[in-house]
Amino acid sequence: IIFEAVRAHFSPKSAELKGQHWIITAGPTMEAIDPVRFISNHSSGKMGYALAKAAADLGAEVTLISGPTNLAMPSGVKRVDVKSAQEMLYACRVAAADQADVFIGAAAIADFRVKDVATQKMKKQSNENEMQLTLIKNPDIIATLSSEDAAKYFIGFAAETQNVVTYAKDKLEKKGLDLIIANDVSRSDIGFNNDQNQVVVLSKDAQWTPEKASKTELAKHLVNIIQTFQTEQPK
Amino acid sequence: IIFEAVRAHFSPKSAELKGQHWIITAGPTMEAIDPVRFISNHSSGKMGYALAKAAADLGAEVTLISGPTNLAMPSGVKRVDVKSAQEMLYACRVAAADQADVFIGAAAIADFRVKDVATQKMKKQSNENEMQLTLIKNPDIIATLSSEDAAKYFIGFAAETQNVVTYAKDKLEKKGLDLIIANDVSRSDIGFNNDQNQVVVLSKDAQWTPEKASKTELAKHLVNIIQTFQTEQPK
Repeated sequence: IIFEAVRAHFSPKSAELKGQHWIITAGPTMEAIDPVRFISNHSSGKMGYALAKAAADLGAEVTLISGPTNLAMPSGVKRVDVKSAQEMLYACRVAAADQADVFIGAAAIADFRVKDVATQKMKKQSNENEMQLTLIKNPDIIATLSSEDAAKYFIGFAAETQNVVTYAKDKLEKKGLDLIIANDVSRSDIGFNNDQNQVVVLSKDAQWTPEKASKTELAKHLVNIIQTFQTEQPK
Repeated sequence: IIFEAVRAHFSPKSAELKGQHWIITAGPTMEAIDPVRFISNHSSGKMGYALAKAAADLGAEVTLISGPTNLAMPSGVKRVDVKSAQEMLYACRVAAADQADVFIGAAAIADFRVKDVATQKMKKQSNENEMQLTLIKNPDIIATLSSEDAAKYFIGFAAETQNVVTYAKDKLEKKGLDLIIANDVSRSDIGFNNDQNQVVVLSKDAQWTPEKASKTELAKHLVNIIQTFQTEQPK
């Protein structure tokens, strides 16, 4: 039944999401070590940007909160640029001042940031062969926003290298999400920094497995799955 | 005298460096934490790429050993792509199998890498608020190559946020360099990720202060300073 509903949505551009505000995060975060060094990750931002475009194409008002990427701004989308996870959380809260309809956390947010960020470039101590970098946990942005009811529906991502479905289901529950989009980043043909992606979408009770597709095509499928979910489980 | 010599070099394209092999490193290095996370820095690679182009334009055979950048390949240059500092050192040694004429270390190489790189994505432990990342010192590429006589002339960079000249002179001696190009990366109008740059060039006995210029223009000045140095101190 769900697949029929999804297929039915593949009609020419419409304004089915008109009146809805979607907040979508994208890209990596960049956590400063000192003025020149940082910790980041290999997220290109392509999936989040594609989702923003797909939602905007269906008439949604989209706020795209983006870490540093090299991607062109999608048309019809409001973009807010951030670097660190803390900046991203702040920008999300500002965007969700009035409860949003949908929040999609597609950014690859650093779990940890550097505890004491150096204000000057750290000098290498020639007598020390090792050094400890103390990291402190970043806020879990989607779990925090979910606990604050910042949106009606929360959709998360789980980028895993093993036990993909098990870890994803676990995240879905712990973070208070409605849907989680899981993918296996250990596969070099899909995911991070790649144009193709293949995912499994999980709700508490259901599972969707869209075919491997370009991120642009997949984004349309995912937006339609979210619409279907909204219809089936109205809030 | 030196300024005259420099000016004299600003003639139309020539083959003054024909027969010379220059090895130039550029860009940041990327040190893996696990399959998705890494430590890097804000180097854009522009200065190194501009130097490669300037040297190639004067007829040098140039090997550009580049960390991850978004820059277009300069024409007339052989590029070798690397990620980590260890890969960069290996690539430099391969390129310098026959002693090079000039080695310019324009890459912003991570001083430290992660000691134990995780082969799976690290899972966030929900009960731990802090974690220690143990870093181990990377090889000092230019100092290592200088000690191995991999090139006749060694030119390094010093990106500093304070005491620029003092730190740079110190590096010149410790690393066995002929020239060091120092800049103040605490200034947001020049240096890292910026098209403009202003530097001080130091040898053991002399100092040059080219005007603030685009990295392309500055690269031409710097190559001419290096040529002048070769002429004055033949090896």
